[in-house]
Amino acid sequence: MTDGTPPPELRRDPITSNWVILAAGRSKRPHAPAAARVQKGRQQRDCPFCEGRESETPPEICACRTCEGHDCPGWTIRVFPNKFPILTRTAPTANRNQAADPDRRPAAGSHEVIVDSPFHNLTPWEIGRDQVLAMLQMYRDRILAYRSDALVEYVHIIRNHKAGGAASQEHPHSQLFGLPFIPPMIDSELSGFEGEWSTEAACLMCDIIRDEEGNESRMVDANDSFVAFSPFASRLPYETWIVPREHQQRFEDCGDLDSMAELMTGLLNRYRTQLGDPPFNYWIHTYPLHGESRPFHWHLEIMPRITVPGGLEMGAGVWVNTVAPEDAATALRKK
Amino acid sequence: MTDGTPPPELRRDPITSNWVILAAGRSKRPHAPAAARVQKGRQQRDCPFCEGRESETPPEICACRTCEGHDCPGWTIRVFPNKFPILTRTAPTANRNQAADPDRRPAAGSHEVIVDSPFHNLTPWEIGRDQVLAMLQMYRDRILAYRSDALVEYVHIIRNHKAGGAASQEHPHSQLFGLPFIPPMIDSELSGFEGEWSTEAACLMCDIIRDEEGNESRMVDANDSFVAFSPFASRLPYETWIVPREHQQRFEDCGDLDSMAELMTGLLNRYRTQLGDPPFNYWIHTYPLHGESRPFHWHLEIMPRITVPGGLEMGAGVWVNTVAPEDAATALRKK
Repeated sequence: MTDGTPPPELRRDPITSNWVILAAGRSKRPHAPAAARVQKGRQQRDCPFCEGRESETPPEICACRTCEGHDCPGWTIRVFPNKFPILTRTAPTANRNQAADPDRRPAAGSHEVIVDSPFHNLTPWEIGRDQVLAMLQMYRDRILAYRSDALVEYVHIIRNHKAGGAASQEHPHSQLFGLPFIPPMIDSELSGFEGEWSTEAACLMCDIIRDEEGNESRMVDANDSFVAFSPFASRLPYETWIVPREHQQRFEDCGDLDSMAELMTGLLNRYRTQLGDPPFNYWIHTYPLHGESRPFHWHLEIMPRITVPGGLEMGAGVWVNTVAPEDAATALRKK
Repeated sequence: MTDGTPPPELRRDPITSNWVILAAGRSKRPHAPAAARVQKGRQQRDCPFCEGRESETPPEICACRTCEGHDCPGWTIRVFPNKFPILTRTAPTANRNQAADPDRRPAAGSHEVIVDSPFHNLTPWEIGRDQVLAMLQMYRDRILAYRSDALVEYVHIIRNHKAGGAASQEHPHSQLFGLPFIPPMIDSELSGFEGEWSTEAACLMCDIIRDEEGNESRMVDANDSFVAFSPFASRLPYETWIVPREHQQRFEDCGDLDSMAELMTGLLNRYRTQLGDPPFNYWIHTYPLHGESRPFHWHLEIMPRITVPGGLEMGAGVWVNTVAPEDAATALRKK
């Protein structure tokens, strides 16, 4: 941000009290051109995330490497700070406007890129279960790295798959956002869990797992440690959740990522083979890092982007789903 | 819905308590093919919203007509029930599953199409201020028609402009959703207004108008009765709000739609001339029909769809805006 672009800023909506991240510098980031047909498993000229172009990204934070080194080829997963961050580790000095206004502050936090495939056109789930496992382990390790960080309240890990899912780079990657506040959707879920807990002393998600396994109509897949199902009130066609059977608040405390990788690899490949590889997002909903006391049960949500949300979704917060989750589950169970 | 498609259903998310509308029949609706270049002001073959094809839509509810008649040419605005409704006036009988489950009920309400231009390729704001005024008057009259309707709790009026804004038909039109609950975003705003009211006995929006006019940097346009500005915590590039200066809870009580039409016509044309006519949505945030007591100040929000929301917006509810509202306002002020 040495080019005169202002550093990213947080602004609080005076009506809803939600924080918005204003990141004007981000509009300058390059967007990968529409996919030239690169052979599967090869590298793409001009892709800054491909092996051999490590000097084009900020220095790596960590990596899974098959040989010694740093910022050089020989990795299977590579993590570095986003070159166009929406949250910055070193909080810029508040300017005069910010100091005078409690609804305005520097966007302090972190924004990392997790390149989770060494191949430009092969996703982790196409490479296979071991690559997905390594990716999940990297997610876990990165969250653990923030546990003692007072600046970050919540670590949000996501994947934007394809341009229709908001990916600006085609090369497979995830992103980590170290947020200095608990995001509204997590707060809302925490309140929901707390409501059930206080009236029934029960975990909502443990109940949901029991109901879905009993009913079967929305179950997509399961193994000893995890279930995958299309949730009862799916917001968009083919929404699916992956949930640990064990009652567990934090993703990073999961002791069986191997089982999760197995289930996730199969499921993401079925989006590809059964649904024609639509754009999607996934994200982990996990527990805030500090000082939270409400109950929770972590999970991963996959949200295909097949229909475009309009004025009802964007302006009222009411989702319209044109595929019954029971039909979605039927399609996603097929192997 | 005589083809075996189930009627639309409401499902409540057990964690967030938000209602989702499941409308499987809607996936069968036709999507207009990519725009053939029709001359401005002409009609498009095969468009069910064009003049002369009135028999292809459900019977009209009302219309602005230049000659006598019903479901025939000679109109400037025409309102009819959506052929693929996500909410239906006659609530279908609850099925056995619904009866047993409080989180599941028929999607009772209404869903109307407001065709607000007789021309396939001319928007109301291109036709001119009188057409925009007639459109706003129609919005008002349709909301008033629901005031005594016990089934509908909130009337949400929107426009989806272009395919990127979720329009499935190219012909200019708005939509009305008669919802049987108060949508989450309205509930959230009502709580925000109530918070300020109870501590300061002041209206948040009246304060905001005063601040924006004093500061000027985010002001886009104004006249005696209305202001237009890019809100301080704009969620997306070039978001703009149109707000009445008078403290008023309900859009349908507005006594000066003429001034609103003037300001809105100019502004929407500047999106076209200054920003290259991006896809957008707009919606009116107004007051629930029945039994609400929290304070409110109605407004119209315009949300261009230039950037695609990803896993941070969709999965955490945190918006990232890459254009400062001060810069957006500068661009939208240019005439």
